[in-house]
Amino acid sequence: MHKASVAVIGASGYSGIELTRILADHPRAELRFLASDRWNGDSAARRLGIQGRAGELRYAPLQGSERAASECDAVFLATPAEASLQLLPKLFGSAARVVDISGAFRLKDASAYRAFYGFEHTQPELLRSAVYGLPELFRQDIAGARLIANPGCYPTGAALALAPLLRAEVIEPAVIIDAASGVTGAGRKSGEEMSFGEVDEDFRAYKVLRHQHAPEIVQALSRCSRVPVRLTFTPHLLPIKRGILTTAYATLKAGRDPSEALRAMQDAYRAEPFVTVIDSPDEVNLKSVAGTNRCTIGLAWDRNSLDPGRLVVVSAIDNLVKGAAGQAVQNMNIAMGWEETDGLAQLRGFYP
Amino acid sequence: MHKASVAVIGASGYSGIELTRILADHPRAELRFLASDRWNGDSAARRLGIQGRAGELRYAPLQGSERAASECDAVFLATPAEASLQLLPKLFGSAARVVDISGAFRLKDASAYRAFYGFEHTQPELLRSAVYGLPELFRQDIAGARLIANPGCYPTGAALALAPLLRAEVIEPAVIIDAASGVTGAGRKSGEEMSFGEVDEDFRAYKVLRHQHAPEIVQALSRCSRVPVRLTFTPHLLPIKRGILTTAYATLKAGRDPSEALRAMQDAYRAEPFVTVIDSPDEVNLKSVAGTNRCTIGLAWDRNSLDPGRLVVVSAIDNLVKGAAGQAVQNMNIAMGWEETDGLAQLRGFYP
Amino acid sequence: MHKASVAVIGASGYSGIELTRILADHPRAELRFLASDRWNGDSAARRLGIQGRAGELRYAPLQGSERAASECDAVFLATPAEASLQLLPKLFGSAARVVDISGAFRLKDASAYRAFYGFEHTQPELLRSAVYGLPELFRQDIAGARLIANPGCYPTGAALALAPLLRAEVIEPAVIIDAASGVTGAGRKSGEEMSFGEVDEDFRAYKVLRHQHAPEIVQALSRCSRVPVRLTFTPHLLPIKRGILTTAYATLKAGRDPSEALRAMQDAYRAEPFVTVIDSPDEVNLKSVAGTNRCTIGLAWDRNSLDPGRLVVVSAIDNLVKGAAGQAVQNMNIAMGWEETDGLAQLRGFYP
Amino acid sequence: MHKASVAVIGASGYSGIELTRILADHPRAELRFLASDRWNGDSAARRLGIQGRAGELRYAPLQGSERAASECDAVFLATPAEASLQLLPKLFGSAARVVDISGAFRLKDASAYRAFYGFEHTQPELLRSAVYGLPELFRQDIAGARLIANPGCYPTGAALALAPLLRAEVIEPAVIIDAASGVTGAGRKSGEEMSFGEVDEDFRAYKVLRHQHAPEIVQALSRCSRVPVRLTFTPHLLPIKRGILTTAYATLKAGRDPSEALRAMQDAYRAEPFVTVIDSPDEVNLKSVAGTNRCTIGLAWDRNSLDPGRLVVVSAIDNLVKGAAGQAVQNMNIAMGWEETDGLAQLRGFYP
Repeated sequence: MHKASVAVIGASGYSGIELTRILADHPRAELRFLASDRWNGDSAARRLGIQGRAGELRYAPLQGSERAASECDAVFLATPAEASLQLLPKLFGSAARVVDISGAFRLKDASAYRAFYGFEHTQPELLRSAVYGLPELFRQDIAGARLIANPGCYPTGAALALAPLLRAEVIEPAVIIDAASGVTGAGRKSGEEMSFGEVDEDFRAYKVLRHQHAPEIVQALSRCSRVPVRLTFTPHLLPIKRGILTTAYATLKAGRDPSEALRAMQDAYRAEPFVTVIDSPDEVNLKSVAGTNRCTIGLAWDRNSLDPGRLVVVSAIDNLVKGAAGQAVQNMNIAMGWEETDGLAQLRGFYP
Repeated sequence: MHKASVAVIGASGYSGIELTRILADHPRAELRFLASDRWNGDSAARRLGIQGRAGELRYAPLQGSERAASECDAVFLATPAEASLQLLPKLFGSAARVVDISGAFRLKDASAYRAFYGFEHTQPELLRSAVYGLPELFRQDIAGARLIANPGCYPTGAALALAPLLRAEVIEPAVIIDAASGVTGAGRKSGEEMSFGEVDEDFRAYKVLRHQHAPEIVQALSRCSRVPVRLTFTPHLLPIKRGILTTAYATLKAGRDPSEALRAMQDAYRAEPFVTVIDSPDEVNLKSVAGTNRCTIGLAWDRNSLDPGRLVVVSAIDNLVKGAAGQAVQNMNIAMGWEETDGLAQLRGFYP
Repeated sequence: MHKASVAVIGASGYSGIELTRILADHPRAELRFLASDRWNGDSAARRLGIQGRAGELRYAPLQGSERAASECDAVFLATPAEASLQLLPKLFGSAARVVDISGAFRLKDASAYRAFYGFEHTQPELLRSAVYGLPELFRQDIAGARLIANPGCYPTGAALALAPLLRAEVIEPAVIIDAASGVTGAGRKSGEEMSFGEVDEDFRAYKVLRHQHAPEIVQALSRCSRVPVRLTFTPHLLPIKRGILTTAYATLKAGRDPSEALRAMQDAYRAEPFVTVIDSPDEVNLKSVAGTNRCTIGLAWDRNSLDPGRLVVVSAIDNLVKGAAGQAVQNMNIAMGWEETDGLAQLRGFYP
Repeated sequence: MHKASVAVIGASGYSGIELTRILADHPRAELRFLASDRWNGDSAARRLGIQGRAGELRYAPLQGSERAASECDAVFLATPAEASLQLLPKLFGSAARVVDISGAFRLKDASAYRAFYGFEHTQPELLRSAVYGLPELFRQDIAGARLIANPGCYPTGAALALAPLLRAEVIEPAVIIDAASGVTGAGRKSGEEMSFGEVDEDFRAYKVLRHQHAPEIVQALSRCSRVPVRLTFTPHLLPIKRGILTTAYATLKAGRDPSEALRAMQDAYRAEPFVTVIDSPDEVNLKSVAGTNRCTIGLAWDRNSLDPGRLVVVSAIDNLVKGAAGQAVQNMNIAMGWEETDGLAQLRGFYP
């Protein structure tokens, strides 16, 4: 079978490494180009122990990488938002489909970039062309797309947890998302703040009420609810490597029964290969999804509880897979018309 | 100076160990009796490296320990709730003041024990005599008390975070408490579920909507608000040893300004030796309170946020100190008429 | 292609889980039978998220499992040594090849079982029939074998680090093995000793001079050196899940040059798909082999060092893969005459 | 009682923080001066939660700090070696006793600094004046000393483990030290290499055969053995915060009995307040010494072992306390003629 050629720009960051490994085993794609300044000149075999032809690839410098990449059938940008913003105009004219893992093309409202990302968005037209790639919620947008904005890790966990309930109009459009992420969510960063001595045995909230994923969550949820959703979002930093656990709080609409919420959730995901609704939020955990493209979701309510109108939904994903590289490949699969699970179904978990 | 004699029953659990160490350095109390079946016959010097006379104490068996303990001026029960329920009637007649670290005497509604603790409460009269020992909120009850129910770890973190806002009537009496605890909160347990291989690199919610601390939080908060408080409480298990981070969500009452919330918080704790209100929830973390009796609290709101009526309050405590042993000593200090900070002010943190 | 049928007995332990996942993706083997009392009746899809036909398999009870297993082409025992000792006689008559992951058939000297395993070995004839399956050192024994004793995790890391130097007679036959293992090396154990509260933030040696893997290391190394090897072995417990780092100390034979040691090492492993000799021991680490069947080895000496006759060799493996399940599959591949890397080459590492 | 005045220069590093906390509770010393560029202007109360007068101290900049410090009775340098080398000449003329926690004045052979520290030692006379402050081995040197070079963390653990055996001449003067340290041993460093994502779930050796503590260990041990000691030293990085576990390997001298080794060890430390010889190396662990100035040591040999002439000695210390700040205070206590345990006996461990 002829394989499509793919490139990864920003291949030595944590998401870039994960992408490289998934693509090296993909049945219909062939890795042809890897760019990374950090590993410039080195091979994927030496850096990641990748076997076969993909292992022989040598990392090229970022400078000028868009030229080689644009000759591929698909390009993954695993670069910071500012870098993606620079690269995209050079790639968009080409035949390559682009999946951008950064936040640079996710928000439809260009002015939100100033407030939440700290830069002026210079490509409003590309922003309009970009498709938000959350397959389980917006699959119809993705087929054939040329520029796919891959969702953020927190928005993936949050939107999967609440979208079916908003679509079914069983909850009020005002929600609370309390989420905790492993350190790889922040990328491959040094800095004292992320050193082992500071993170180990600690837990804390950060960017409270000002995290850049908040407007992205609102945008995704509001599209589902068809009315603007009010959101309070608190991210926390976990002393682990991978995984996001999202605990979402919602209020049942007057006259609706909690069993309708469970049914809406089950209906929404029954046919989904990567999302599983399980019996209880107590059984949702990070270790069983780490290393996979899966999302598990559990929902709880209690007619006799101390606040009977409240629903609690807990979801778990691996921030580097379903929250980044895996979802990016899922998006490419859909855009190219392949099986959505290609290269992803066989991802083994890490447990134990 | 003559020192008061104190006993610890259940001295080899994690709270019991912490109590032993704090009491061994207490300026007005002298450890006289330690009971533990696990360490029966061994010395505190050998088990905990404690120097001086306290180190020479040998652990006695639990069986019959109430007799020796009742001759002390104060007795700490660091036993499971069922054991405390058995021991208390034998101790209550004596001259000793008792601080019970278990949940056995915390809930005023005896019938709640069946639902949340799984046993029938057999001592309703003692329950009425018991005083709930959360000094910063109910200090006036504690002086001279003979039976003090030491608060649970989650209720301590939650009540300190929200009580001033409820007292000042700036928030609605319906709150969400999302909290995460290190493993020592579950006591010194074996069992596969708490093994390193299962807990490490994981994070999960547990006992969602049915944790036994939920009615205790409601009881404490409702006393402050003077109307019944509705509560949704979700505890999580952190892969760390110590600490509880509480992220609380509240809704501003109509017509109230968020600055009133901050002022209420600052006023409530200005004179408190162990509670510090800090500028931002982002600076509240577990590592800076671990090993101390301190609680740090940060409050956030944002007029321009995606849900402007919502307040987020984050608090941090060490579950074994302010959430158990330290608060128990604080309660004893008040009950005996000593300086409230005796034996506690000099607790060094663990950071780094 | 017709696939061979395989069974795993003891499928819910950590090695059994790893075996199940590797075999579910094996190109020439088909999982047909899984036995586990713990997960009796449950499916592999539900427990491990395994897709396809293997996921539909339901765990059978251990009792009587040898009958169903003996109808397969290959059987993996991921059971404790005592259980393997009971099961083997019932399986050995059948057509199935058996790979035993326990220590029950590794030591040629039956009397050593009393001293190091605490039981009398009741199957001395099977012991003689068993082949020690360390492919890189004793590959010729494995082809066509009916009973393969899969090496222990520590012996794998230790023997791979030192065997080439002993074979080439560049070091004295008296060595020190200092090794550290993640908790999964001890299997899926509960018990307070292995609880998160006890293991986290700690490090300690255990079973000093009396670990059951010591005679196995001596047996493997002595076969290579052709003279009895003297060994001092100290295992340590690391607060991580997976991986064994082995630091081995050897003394250069008089008249031999350290460069001969490096050459012997490189020659021994040049053609090996799973062993890589890298430039410096400083670059050998656990995170780059975790989740793979690889072993990395680095060797250091220094003519100007503070003890110039000494060599230091550091090796790294994943105890559950190259130290257990992966090596078991490698052994099956050889015994069946398949590609040695089948089912193993594509194992992705876990890093980050 | 009049208290001596003390200063800490480099007070925001991990050793500096630990020093500050220990000194804040010292019965005979009063913290008067803290210098740190990082925390310049801030108070010790805010940064470390220190109560009382010490908490009111504000951090001064390093620039010019030697002037204020030299008016104190004792000065602790918790600065990098290069900084200590610059500061010492400005302090040495003054009345202040100086304890330098860096390596700048530990090695008697000035030329070793080029090879192991990468700088030329510019103060050979001060080097001769400096006293090596390992009280349990060289206490007689310390009383009244004006410049004390505080031992490195690895040398403390290694020398305490082996010195009594070399002094008693029961082992050969050729030893192997295999040691593992928590991350705080490297100081408060950022850099990707020390980030949580890289250190967590990993273990590796580093600076194999070229660590700067190797010549220091040789110097200390050779002084005890009175013949030059040959050393192989391998440090490893543990994914924990605090603690060094040292596993030392020695060879019994011909004609000596292993029981003599145990006796030599027990005799050496019987009267020592901070060193405990315990029954078995299996009981030596980091969690029971973390946060204390203690060192525990266990020794093993086995006449029937696989290498009967070999001894294994395991020691444990907290690298920030007995390996740095605690030992520095112990040295000051001796130099000033105070009780050696002042400010140290009451250090509570961190367990659990």
